[in-house]
Amino acid sequence: MTKRVYFFGGGTAEGSGKMRELLGGKGANLAEMSRLGIPVPPGFTITTEMCTEYYRNGKQWPQGLAEEIEANLRKLEEAMGARFGDPANPLLVSVRSGARVSMPGMMDTILNLGLNDETVEGLIKRTGNPRFGYDSYRRFIHMYGDVVLGVAHEEFEARIDRMKEEKGVNLDTELDADDLARLVEEYKALVAEKTGRSFPSDPMEQLKGAINAVFDSWNTPRAVRYRELHDIPNDWGTAVNVQAMVFGNMGNRSATGVAFTRNPATGEKEFYGEFLVNAQGEDVVAGIRTPEPIARLKELMPEAYAQLEEIYQRLERHYKDMQDIEFTIQEGQLYMLQTRSGKRTAQAAVRIAVEMVDEGLIDEREAVLQVPAGQLDQLLHKQIDPKAKVEVIARGLPASPGAAVGRVVFNAEDAEQWAARGEKVILVRRETSPEDIGGMHAAQGILTARGGMTSHAAVVARGMGKCCVAGAGEIRIDEAARRFTVNGRVFQEGDWITLNGSTGEVIAGQVELVDPELSGHFARLMEWADRFRALRVRTNADTPNDAALARKFGAEGIGLCRTEHMFFGEDRIRAMREMILAADSDARRRALEKLLPYQREDFYGIFKAMDGLPVTIRLLDPPLHEFLPHEPEAVAAIAEDLGVSPDDVRAKVSSLQEFNPMLGHRGCRLAITYPEIYEMQTRAIFEAAARYKAEGGRPLPEVMVPLVGTVGELRILKRRIKEVADRVLQEAGVEVPYTIGTMIEVPRAAVLAGRIAEEAQFFSFGTNDLTQMTFGFSRDDVGTFLPAYLEQGILEKDPFQTLDQSGVGELVEMGTRRGRETNPDLKVGICGEHGGDPESVAFCHRVGMDYVSCSPFRVPVARLAAAQANLKAPRS
Amino acid sequence: MTKRVYFFGGGTAEGSGKMRELLGGKGANLAEMSRLGIPVPPGFTITTEMCTEYYRNGKQWPQGLAEEIEANLRKLEEAMGARFGDPANPLLVSVRSGARVSMPGMMDTILNLGLNDETVEGLIKRTGNPRFGYDSYRRFIHMYGDVVLGVAHEEFEARIDRMKEEKGVNLDTELDADDLARLVEEYKALVAEKTGRSFPSDPMEQLKGAINAVFDSWNTPRAVRYRELHDIPNDWGTAVNVQAMVFGNMGNRSATGVAFTRNPATGEKEFYGEFLVNAQGEDVVAGIRTPEPIARLKELMPEAYAQLEEIYQRLERHYKDMQDIEFTIQEGQLYMLQTRSGKRTAQAAVRIAVEMVDEGLIDEREAVLQVPAGQLDQLLHKQIDPKAKVEVIARGLPASPGAAVGRVVFNAEDAEQWAARGEKVILVRRETSPEDIGGMHAAQGILTARGGMTSHAAVVARGMGKCCVAGAGEIRIDEAARRFTVNGRVFQEGDWITLNGSTGEVIAGQVELVDPELSGHFARLMEWADRFRALRVRTNADTPNDAALARKFGAEGIGLCRTEHMFFGEDRIRAMREMILAADSDARRRALEKLLPYQREDFYGIFKAMDGLPVTIRLLDPPLHEFLPHEPEAVAAIAEDLGVSPDDVRAKVSSLQEFNPMLGHRGCRLAITYPEIYEMQTRAIFEAAARYKAEGGRPLPEVMVPLVGTVGELRILKRRIKEVADRVLQEAGVEVPYTIGTMIEVPRAAVLAGRIAEEAQFFSFGTNDLTQMTFGFSRDDVGTFLPAYLEQGILEKDPFQTLDQSGVGELVEMGTRRGRETNPDLKVGICGEHGGDPESVAFCHRVGMDYVSCSPFRVPVARLAAAQANLKAPRS
Repeated sequence: MTKRVYFFGGGTAEGSGKMRELLGGKGANLAEMSRLGIPVPPGFTITTEMCTEYYRNGKQWPQGLAEEIEANLRKLEEAMGARFGDPANPLLVSVRSGARVSMPGMMDTILNLGLNDETVEGLIKRTGNPRFGYDSYRRFIHMYGDVVLGVAHEEFEARIDRMKEEKGVNLDTELDADDLARLVEEYKALVAEKTGRSFPSDPMEQLKGAINAVFDSWNTPRAVRYRELHDIPNDWGTAVNVQAMVFGNMGNRSATGVAFTRNPATGEKEFYGEFLVNAQGEDVVAGIRTPEPIARLKELMPEAYAQLEEIYQRLERHYKDMQDIEFTIQEGQLYMLQTRSGKRTAQAAVRIAVEMVDEGLIDEREAVLQVPAGQLDQLLHKQIDPKAKVEVIARGLPASPGAAVGRVVFNAEDAEQWAARGEKVILVRRETSPEDIGGMHAAQGILTARGGMTSHAAVVARGMGKCCVAGAGEIRIDEAARRFTVNGRVFQEGDWITLNGSTGEVIAGQVELVDPELSGHFARLMEWADRFRALRVRTNADTPNDAALARKFGAEGIGLCRTEHMFFGEDRIRAMREMILAADSDARRRALEKLLPYQREDFYGIFKAMDGLPVTIRLLDPPLHEFLPHEPEAVAAIAEDLGVSPDDVRAKVSSLQEFNPMLGHRGCRLAITYPEIYEMQTRAIFEAAARYKAEGGRPLPEVMVPLVGTVGELRILKRRIKEVADRVLQEAGVEVPYTIGTMIEVPRAAVLAGRIAEEAQFFSFGTNDLTQMTFGFSRDDVGTFLPAYLEQGILEKDPFQTLDQSGVGELVEMGTRRGRETNPDLKVGICGEHGGDPESVAFCHRVGMDYVSCSPFRVPVARLAAAQANLKAPRS
Repeated sequence: MTKRVYFFGGGTAEGSGKMRELLGGKGANLAEMSRLGIPVPPGFTITTEMCTEYYRNGKQWPQGLAEEIEANLRKLEEAMGARFGDPANPLLVSVRSGARVSMPGMMDTILNLGLNDETVEGLIKRTGNPRFGYDSYRRFIHMYGDVVLGVAHEEFEARIDRMKEEKGVNLDTELDADDLARLVEEYKALVAEKTGRSFPSDPMEQLKGAINAVFDSWNTPRAVRYRELHDIPNDWGTAVNVQAMVFGNMGNRSATGVAFTRNPATGEKEFYGEFLVNAQGEDVVAGIRTPEPIARLKELMPEAYAQLEEIYQRLERHYKDMQDIEFTIQEGQLYMLQTRSGKRTAQAAVRIAVEMVDEGLIDEREAVLQVPAGQLDQLLHKQIDPKAKVEVIARGLPASPGAAVGRVVFNAEDAEQWAARGEKVILVRRETSPEDIGGMHAAQGILTARGGMTSHAAVVARGMGKCCVAGAGEIRIDEAARRFTVNGRVFQEGDWITLNGSTGEVIAGQVELVDPELSGHFARLMEWADRFRALRVRTNADTPNDAALARKFGAEGIGLCRTEHMFFGEDRIRAMREMILAADSDARRRALEKLLPYQREDFYGIFKAMDGLPVTIRLLDPPLHEFLPHEPEAVAAIAEDLGVSPDDVRAKVSSLQEFNPMLGHRGCRLAITYPEIYEMQTRAIFEAAARYKAEGGRPLPEVMVPLVGTVGELRILKRRIKEVADRVLQEAGVEVPYTIGTMIEVPRAAVLAGRIAEEAQFFSFGTNDLTQMTFGFSRDDVGTFLPAYLEQGILEKDPFQTLDQSGVGELVEMGTRRGRETNPDLKVGICGEHGGDPESVAFCHRVGMDYVSCSPFRVPVARLAAAQANLKAPRS
């Protein structure tokens, strides 16, 4: 015989935590806690099958359901020592939906069901608080009227607003018991008027209505759409949870509170929380009375405290995690209203996990799985002192974590000059471009008014491990006047501001920062993580400094060394521009000759910093016009500098302009048309490697050709690279092992990976560009529509932050598989922004990549995420 | 026992046309012709296996080869009645490579092998022409020295140049016999100096060297690279053809000529050609003597003529096609040097195919297969009178076929104004933009200085069926001065020019044009084609005129009706700009309200023109900034027009600017953020459909959502479109069947086609954009590198003209397959430029599409290509 309703409470339960499908997530949890002996307020769960049956039955309760509910209600009355509808001692209940997975659009909680004109008096008597009684009653009518009876929420709001106006008060809390009693009458009249029937006073009728409302909420358009988007079957249905209300405001033997089983800020092992005597949960939140620290409870109610202490320890042992709990004490009887994994800082997460291992509560694997990898890089940066008072003047995107204090400057040259004379500066720009690199390096942090999480400023700042707040749209920059305005306030050049790149806050003035504490806990956790992972973790680094830093964070090589930033130094950009403006191959070669020593020096430093580890160097990628100036003065300056006419420069700049630079003359396409560029870069790489090798070092260069879309491109370029490399090494008389491979970042390359792998020793998925081209989204332009896409649920996540597994991911998987089919030795990695995103790292693990590569500060994140991925789905 | 050498000649052959693998293409053809009794000059073919053996043997001839060559040489001497090395009557031979497929990098022909100081005298005696003898000899040394002995070509050139200088002449032909005899000595000295050995005078040694040179040419870097790119196995090897030289200059019983078996210009059935008595082939080409019409041969050499007539008819019967033949008569003996399918005009191709059916030579299927589909649209346009003398001033790309005569104007407004007063104009622009549409319509033809085959001008002109020459880079336009300069010549506004869009020629002055002759032959051929095809053919058309034209050409519906061009009319653009500049949804709606009647009228006309046939309407696709002006005056004008400040307009223009518009805020993304636009368009479509239906018409609208990349986009938009459509139809009280589908043009859409097909009733592959994104090629920017890619063989064809089957094509195939898996009723078509390219049509046929859609003038092309595809690979 089908069991339709499952009871829980009093240290036992008919269901269990394993019955999610039948009882929904919430019902299963309540059953589980009750079985554990946790004193949850008792209640019962109507199964999801009843919901399905309800729909099959043309929205009628299946046979036998009414009787089972009735029987469980009796049991509940007994457990609580109160009766449904009893004017003296009324049992009140909450009604909640509870599907297998939580879902937007489902019914909210209805509280205090069972209240009517008689029972409200009983509640008032029990709590001694008429205001509380009528407030609960009017809230109940409002909620029930809206959700169950379909009377518009705004209608109730209009009535309470009118009453506040009459009384000349601003806040709901300023209304007294009489006002609220009057409001109850008005609400009832409203319901009668709108529905043509009086508000149901019979608690059983109320209950039946609420249960149907839960069933009906399974099919709201929003819930249906959500299920469509997430492939959730319609016939799963929702369970209904009916649970006794308990009250912490029934006198001095009652109380209510919230607590964490450990300190959520530091992770210290201490019972941490606060409570109020003779109060309801809302009172703690509302802040009218100041709660007392949890330790005081021990003095006031030693028995309840002892029970609470025993329970929280049991919960931690059971869930093997720090818990965030809510409790109520009703006339000396402790009830646990809620327990869940507690939110915590990254620092606390690490400490808790490690200490729990030491306590024998969890093992090292569980510790590694417990710490959210995504937060980890917060630990590696300076932070705003948690004790500091801050004045937030604007909010942008948390584009690159950490914090920075400095004086405002408005262009890259100023940043460099001010920094050179020892000033700390914040570079404030509408948006940044490659020409700003020097200034970004010199600045403490970067603030931009435009651009998203993957704008130039954000990407470069993360690469540098430099704090950045991007796209702070409220800020209006007047570059000429050297000031910015935000909400009417003006900040001049030289004014101090502080940025919080972890939250996106822009703060007025100088705020105290604290250094990262890479305590022993952190080191221990990372050591465990390294033991469990299958993926290697490399870093994206363009300078010896970044390389050294990343190595400190555990990088096992460089997965992406971009060479274009190297061309922006003052002497270099001149030669670069000379090369671009050259009339023929010979002139180009002469200009490149000047760049060679710089590049060689760059590579030498990087090989040294990464001694013994592989260094993947991407040959020049961006379109040449990125290196040319556009302002008339700059054009004139270059023309004079190079001894050509400004018209020639202008003509060249204009001839290099492109409609869609992203899809233009860049990457290996440059090398096909101007072979000299890659030749010079190859020489620089191998001359540096030869020198370092001759000194006894262990350089391991991997030369990467960007933007390949056809095997022909790679075949031609590989041959040229190999020729130059072998000649240089032969002339130097040293042997340096090296490989030549390609980025897979054009969709066609993923499709034709089998062919391309015939020529490649490695693939590195450039998922930034691959995402741009697969979606047809220009990263620099998505700001106009991507927010709407996320809001409307068309996309769940920004695909530039978390890899789009079903679309872009399928191309990555296809590229990996096809590449390995023709070349089983193919080494495969990823070097897009996604290499530092935990969910994307798990994907890379799953498709069988050899490594991920990410910015230095994301290296620990990737190490932890890789370990978690392997623990969840070990590589065979 | 392996047979190493195959003899042919004298009406018989040891090999046959089926032995391509063993004898190579050329050797097999020679054997085949000889077997047919065609008197080819006799000779023998050394098999491809010998080449493979040669390499296996460390570049030594395999055993037995020398003996077989020797034996065949004797046979050849006998057949020709001459002897190798005989000073009195020398046998001379040609040596040619011949692989299974022809391949660049392979050895060129060596002619007149067997010449030396003695045999040259024999040749002179036989031809009575010392100049010819020494010229043949010096050419032989040059060629042999270069190809076989490795003496640089330039060295020979330098010597002949020096001699011409000494003699004070310009042309080789001005050197006399003595000069050439002296040159022979110089050449021999050169060879001796460079190789350290004297030039081989022994014909057998010469032959051996030439055969080895053919074998060696199999492995030139260029040939190797070609094989790599085209997957040709290295062990195929090449055959070597040794064939007797014959001479048409051995007196008045000798002659040489070329002929077509039918008139290649008109297709008329007549033997058509010319010849010279006592001459070699070069003399015909060089144009020093004027050849005589072939009919004269009948009078001069009736016997040879009768044989030739018999042979050419036999060849036509055998190859079932019009032949282009070369022949030589040596002392009364006719030799056929070459026969191949003759090149012909489109007009001739159609007439020949149809008449051959009437003659019973071929059947209708063969006729359909014989006409090259790609040329067919030439028949539909005006052409330059073939008899006109033209002065070509520049050459651009043949961007849109046909011809046009008109007076030069430099902007769209002028074009419209001049045309309005009855002038014929040619619009000359650096490049065109959507703002030029009106002027392009008004012009006879369009000439641009920039842009490729898929530039805006080219695409739009082809769509309009209007002649266009694009990317004529030699033309320098000075718009302000209203003139253009080309190679020093100036053309002012109002000067007459003529364009040939089929060849890309720009011609000075007014040239006579002739009308297309859509003769009965054309109609009959198309009727056969329609009988044999499985694909439907629709058209891309944005106006009732285009639709009507395309229907005349056989279009079976509209596959792509773009709606954006409709917004560029004077009144419309104003409302459009008002909409774009609107501050909120209401203001946007008000502006759109003004556009509604125009759109409705557009659609009404199109439904009428396509009565009873489906009309796929693509909702607005381009980014909004395409509708805004950028010049300060235009901005000011609009601001005044709309009563807003120029600053506001400027700010809006600038805020809408994008880094990569191709990947920006366009297509369905616009509709997600501004739902009002598609709502208006949907209303216009269905109000027009309802009106036409009420009048008794048969409108069949198919609403197409562009740029979909996720199923969520289509789900949301489809619901909205359906709501509006159903409401409009219900209000009008008519029933109009309609469907809603999407373009597949973003790579992600192809990958996720299975999901998207759940919401789509049809897919139309937008292969223009799909190619851009799959390759990462911006169509507007590829001009800087695509030519190099084609030249270096990285890409075989421009992927914007012919679908890239292995990359983009795989996504198309995947999208089609996955779409049909979840939605078996899905209708699938293509509406990119490729829909009118025969090779791409064949691909669409193969992947099982329902239809292709192309510009009106390509409709017959597609019909024929579809028939050919189905005849070659019938749909099961």
